[in-house]
Amino acid sequence: MDQDNDANIRGFQPDFRWQDVERMPYKEEGSAPFKAISRQVLFADPALKCELRYFEMAAEGYSTLERHEHAHAVMILRGEGHCLLGDEVRPVKQFDLVNIPAWTWHQFRATKGAPLGFLCMVNAQRDRPQLPSEQDLAAMAANPRLAAFLKGAPAA
Amino acid sequence: MDQDNDANIRGFQPDFRWQDVERMPYKEEGSAPFKAISRQVLFADPALKCELRYFEMAAEGYSTLERHEHAHAVMILRGEGHCLLGDEVRPVKQFDLVNIPAWTWHQFRATKGAPLGFLCMVNAQRDRPQLPSEQDLAAMAANPRLAAFLKGAPAA
Repeated sequence: MDQDNDANIRGFQPDFRWQDVERMPYKEEGSAPFKAISRQVLFADPALKCELRYFEMAAEGYSTLERHEHAHAVMILRGEGHCLLGDEVRPVKQFDLVNIPAWTWHQFRATKGAPLGFLCMVNAQRDRPQLPSEQDLAAMAANPRLAAFLKGAPAA
Repeated sequence: MDQDNDANIRGFQPDFRWQDVERMPYKEEGSAPFKAISRQVLFADPALKCELRYFEMAAEGYSTLERHEHAHAVMILRGEGHCLLGDEVRPVKQFDLVNIPAWTWHQFRATKGAPLGFLCMVNAQRDRPQLPSEQDLAAMAANPRLAAFLKGAPAA
C-alpha cells in the first residue's frame, strides 16, 4: 500500500471521527462563551485557500455567538438543531446548507437532545471573531424571535 | 420569514438535491471522457476563496481521469465506490476524506451498483485539468493495480 495514499485517504470512523484527525477543543477555554463543542480540522493544506473543519456539539451544546468580516459556508453533517443567523432562528438538519455572510451574528445549538455536527469552509486567512457587547446582547434578547434561543430553549 | 435567510439557509432535499441549487452537467459534453455524472455548486461566494461542489455519479458512472496544478479536498457524501489516486486504486465510502495533491492523476467510479456522491473543495481560481496522453494511459494500463479499474471493473 502506498504510503502517500495512506495520508491522502483518511477513513471515516465511528462517532464522527476520522483517521489521523485530532479532535481538539473548540477554542481556548475562557476565551469566549461556548459549551460542549469540539473541532476537527479535516483539510488545511497550503495549496488550498480555504480550510474545511468539522465542529460537533453534544446535546445542549452550543457554539460561540459571534460575528466577523469573513464568511462561513456550512453544511450540517450530523443530527439536527437550530441556528441563530442575523435576526432569526432557524431549524437545521443533516445536509442543509447555511451561508453566514460577513458581520452576521451566528450561533449553533444542539437543541434536539442529540449531537449536532457541521462542516465549515472558511478562508485560511481571516479576521478574528467579534463577541457581542452587553448592548448587542440586550438588543438581541429584546427580539422575540431570538429570545428563547438565547436562553437555550428555542421553539421546536 | 426573513428573505435574506431564505437565501442563506438552503434545505437538503430528497435524492441529494438542495433548495435553489441547480443540478448541472458535469462538464461540456465531448470535452473529456466521463459517464453519468452531475454537478451541483453548493457554495461559490466571492467572499470565499474556495468553492464547494457536489458531484454525483449514477451506478457505473465515473469522473474524468485527469490531473492539474490545483489540489482537491474531497469528502464522500453518498454511497461508496473506488478512486484512482496516483498509482493506486482505493475503496471509498461515506464520509471518507480524499486529498488529491497537485499533478496527481485521479478518477472516481461508482463501482457498487449505486450512486457515488462527493463534496469537492477547490480554489475558486485554478488551472484547467490536463487529460492523459496515449502514453500516459498505456503506462497506467501496464500497472496491475490500475488496469482493472481503468476497464471499469476494480477489485471489490
